Amino acid sequence: MANPSLEDQGKIDLAEYLLKRLIQLGLGSVHGVPGDYNLTFLDYIKPLGLHWAGNANELNAGYAADGYGRIKGIGAVITSFGVGELSAINAIGGAYAERSPVVHIVGTAPMAAQASGALLHHTLGTGNYRACPEMSKWVTVAQANLTDADKAPALIDATLKACVLNSQPVYIELPTNMVKAQVSPPVTPIDLSIPGYDEAYENTVVDKVMEKIQTSTKPLILMDGLTSRFRITEEVNEFVRLTGLPTLSTPFGKGIVNESLPNYHGGYLGAAGDAVIKQQVDDADLVLNFGPLHSDVNSFGFTAVPKADVTIAFNAQSVKFGNEVDSDGRTISIKSFMKKLVKRAHATKLPASQPFTHGPSFSPILLKNLKPTADDAAIVQDTFWLRMSEFFQPGDLVITEAGTSFMGTNTCVFPDNITLINSALWLSIGYTLPALQGSSLARREQRKEGSKEAARSSGRSILFIGDGSLQMSAQGISDIIRSRLDATIFVINNDGYTVERVIHGPNEHYNDIQPWRNTEAPNYFGAPLDDPEYPVVAEKAKNWGELRSVLGRKDVQAGKGLTVIEVFMDLADAPAPLKKLSAYVANRNKTNGS
Amino acid sequence: MANPSLEDQGKIDLAEYLLKRLIQLGLGSVHGVPGDYNLTFLDYIKPLGLHWAGNANELNAGYAADGYGRIKGIGAVITSFGVGELSAINAIGGAYAERSPVVHIVGTAPMAAQASGALLHHTLGTGNYRACPEMSKWVTVAQANLTDADKAPALIDATLKACVLNSQPVYIELPTNMVKAQVSPPVTPIDLSIPGYDEAYENTVVDKVMEKIQTSTKPLILMDGLTSRFRITEEVNEFVRLTGLPTLSTPFGKGIVNESLPNYHGGYLGAAGDAVIKQQVDDADLVLNFGPLHSDVNSFGFTAVPKADVTIAFNAQSVKFGNEVDSDGRTISIKSFMKKLVKRAHATKLPASQPFTHGPSFSPILLKNLKPTADDAAIVQDTFWLRMSEFFQPGDLVITEAGTSFMGTNTCVFPDNITLINSALWLSIGYTLPALQGSSLARREQRKEGSKEAARSSGRSILFIGDGSLQMSAQGISDIIRSRLDATIFVINNDGYTVERVIHGPNEHYNDIQPWRNTEAPNYFGAPLDDPEYPVVAEKAKNWGELRSVLGRKDVQAGKGLTVIEVFMDLADAPAPLKKLSAYVANRNKTNGS
Repeated sequence: MANPSLEDQGKIDLAEYLLKRLIQLGLGSVHGVPGDYNLTFLDYIKPLGLHWAGNANELNAGYAADGYGRIKGIGAVITSFGVGELSAINAIGGAYAERSPVVHIVGTAPMAAQASGALLHHTLGTGNYRACPEMSKWVTVAQANLTDADKAPALIDATLKACVLNSQPVYIELPTNMVKAQVSPPVTPIDLSIPGYDEAYENTVVDKVMEKIQTSTKPLILMDGLTSRFRITEEVNEFVRLTGLPTLSTPFGKGIVNESLPNYHGGYLGAAGDAVIKQQVDDADLVLNFGPLHSDVNSFGFTAVPKADVTIAFNAQSVKFGNEVDSDGRTISIKSFMKKLVKRAHATKLPASQPFTHGPSFSPILLKNLKPTADDAAIVQDTFWLRMSEFFQPGDLVITEAGTSFMGTNTCVFPDNITLINSALWLSIGYTLPALQGSSLARREQRKEGSKEAARSSGRSILFIGDGSLQMSAQGISDIIRSRLDATIFVINNDGYTVERVIHGPNEHYNDIQPWRNTEAPNYFGAPLDDPEYPVVAEKAKNWGELRSVLGRKDVQAGKGLTVIEVFMDLADAPAPLKKLSAYVANRNKTNGS
Repeated sequence: MANPSLEDQGKIDLAEYLLKRLIQLGLGSVHGVPGDYNLTFLDYIKPLGLHWAGNANELNAGYAADGYGRIKGIGAVITSFGVGELSAINAIGGAYAERSPVVHIVGTAPMAAQASGALLHHTLGTGNYRACPEMSKWVTVAQANLTDADKAPALIDATLKACVLNSQPVYIELPTNMVKAQVSPPVTPIDLSIPGYDEAYENTVVDKVMEKIQTSTKPLILMDGLTSRFRITEEVNEFVRLTGLPTLSTPFGKGIVNESLPNYHGGYLGAAGDAVIKQQVDDADLVLNFGPLHSDVNSFGFTAVPKADVTIAFNAQSVKFGNEVDSDGRTISIKSFMKKLVKRAHATKLPASQPFTHGPSFSPILLKNLKPTADDAAIVQDTFWLRMSEFFQPGDLVITEAGTSFMGTNTCVFPDNITLINSALWLSIGYTLPALQGSSLARREQRKEGSKEAARSSGRSILFIGDGSLQMSAQGISDIIRSRLDATIFVINNDGYTVERVIHGPNEHYNDIQPWRNTEAPNYFGAPLDDPEYPVVAEKAKNWGELRSVLGRKDVQAGKGLTVIEVFMDLADAPAPLKKLSAYVANRNKTNGS
């Protein structure tokens, strides 16, 4: 690809440099949509061994890159400037909010055209080419405009470092005339050292945490979702196991801790959940809060936020004791920190903590006491989610869309090594279908690579999504088929936006949707009709009997190829915690509360 | 809806004020997606007699509002803040670039939550609620945040005025707690006077233009697309007819001038078109350029831009002679200006202008000389578009997606009173399908209202879109069905992104798409199966015979209900002018040219 005469001098094309750096960081696939300002860059993807996902649109490409990034620690989406990048920007915002490491590469106009303010297509017509880059600054942690071949490699490295260390998106502009600019190839890996990292300080923090644990009488662990972004799932599981401390999870953090651990006590739903649990959290004299994200939705209207003065909050590069980070600008590496903490937990005998009890709503108990349902009885939210517990297998990926699925899955009992992807802050409906595509692709790569995450990638890729949300990004099904990805999609058909109905306007027309024939999706999106390598299942379940029947099928249980199961529920039916949360939201919106 | 005790004092809810103002400006339908921060606002839509389009996603809602606004002179899209508004922002960018008057109403969080930086869902997690409003400033001409009931009415009025006068989008934030704030109802219509308007000055400009025409020996008219935004189609047609000046149209401006006028000489394609035409434009000593938008695509790599020193450019509020606007800050109203110009043209005997000749590629001649095709011969771009001329009927709306459809339709011969919607600057692929929904809805309203535009709304609503573009926003078909809109969709199935193949990578995998079964779309998106009130046609045309057969059907010609016709063409086939333009783009992108 490089100019042969220059290859002798060891130079490579700038496009190749960028992609090689991404490959070094673990990237195996690129998401995006072709456009005339990025076509020559796309020439480099396949020859470098990368898979091109080729999404149906840019928003879905961005969402998919986010899902991919959550699994592999790096994701990439390529768009045109102007139209393409703005179509993707909501996905970039979501990656920013929920910390997915996505590199947004934007193919821009030739530099001379930009400098002259030429009225090229995809511009706003103002002659100002900086509008979209300025907009992207709000949703990315670093930006690079590769206009100078000499500076580009260092700029790329710094930008990718910001992406990985913050686990948040970055923005890279590549003018078409720079694609083949000659640069020196990368020699050493990208420097990923954490600014301000101080091992001695990190050790004192370990000491301090251990001391707090030993001196507390009512300690507990609250596992939240950003923990997965820190890539310390193994370590926190070991820590939970070794310490035996009572452990709860937020909706965003569910799945991170293996639920078979005897000291795992289920989800923490604040005022929307078990009062017995809430009392014990309120009474705790120490809460070890991993990867906290205390959004309204994740904390049930801020009722599940532990008291600051007893909380130790574990973040990527800092540990916060109460309201203070006593660091003098020094940082830790949460990965290295957790390894030390686990080592100490191994070596330290901890005082037995007070017995932790749950109220009547502890999921494993509810599951055990479930009564059989009549075949012809309607499927109801109240037990649907709990019953799905028995469908899950170790190593599954479970993705839940905002709304009833997000909240409902919270009541499931998960087998070990489940990865849960959901949204607890950005809550952009439609996110999860493309995220399923991206994460299923990432897991296929992990299995091929035999990566150490392979145990968590061995299972199926399963999505629960409402019929309204599905409509937002339905092309994601096409993208799944295109890359021949394994995906199981439960479409919860409840005739519209049930989550909105629960908040306001239960019977209003604006919460209705155009009813689709959801099981026709594989056919419409061009799924192969009879390919043993890529089987396709599309079934409806209108009552418990039909649901049991389809879930009992061997092919459905295997989860190979594409499976679409449309589950019908009443439009007003919602999980109990969602109803409680929605009442809070409705009241807040009316009263100017917060 | 208003609080009864306050109604006595004549107050109304702020939400009602905003919608009443929009209704006064001609709005009959609202596009958008419900979300918990806008639900209570949505309560006002139906009672005020507005139609709720209820789109499947926000980008499509924005595109649809743009299409609606191009027809009715005002469009509106409602989203949630954060996620919803960012999903729509590419559409808002397009409305900004190509001047569609779209009001983007954003349901935002309660003010107390915003002030405290609460970690609510749909925020970026930074506590800063101004990120998205700041982003929107780049793509809107005015912004309003309705946080003060006393100031809100004036703020709304000023914002809507900016929308209408600039024919560009504006941005209105409505915090949930302000929906029912009490305000005085609108008494007088919104002041839409043009700042700096000076009738005496306008009259001198009329004189000057008439003088230029009378003293020129080789004058001509170049009609461009922004003319439709100025809502002066009737006037320019009358002007063209009365003056008899040779008239050409850009691709963006096609359809504005009735092509049956004897002095209409077809499209002006610069270097990509007829050399005889180009020579005459180059030789002209006066070019009356209405609604100019000299983008690369509309001007074939800037080769169709008339020489500045002989050009008079007619814009919404100014007339530019050569490179100068000799106005001293005074403005005109193009509508009032054109009425005067027409009056003067009526009263003035103009010198006969030099005869204008065309080369061999004048469409009506090509059309007359077309040879019949064999039934089993493949459909080719070279004559497909020209042959479609005979399908069109007076009063049709024709929408053409970027790519082969945009360029191909340029060679059609249109009957009178055709409205063409296309994109000549922003070129966001996928725009046109939702725009079809919005504009078909707008036309239905115009027919009901018996508006004076009804002659141009009497026909069918017809879209030509490629298979790749369709995938971007396919949910638009669902939105069409939901509102039971008449729509005829020609899907040009050429196995992927042909426009990109012509530019770069003709056989590259990245220009492929997942093949869909396009005629299954009505079924998947829930079209009624057997409703005489809403008939559905979905047919494939793989050769000329099949195409003739489907186009000959009475129901297809009527265009009632939903018609999807999938037309198969070779993946490398493209209209000749597109190939020429693409060669220019490819070269520019490589060479850093502009």
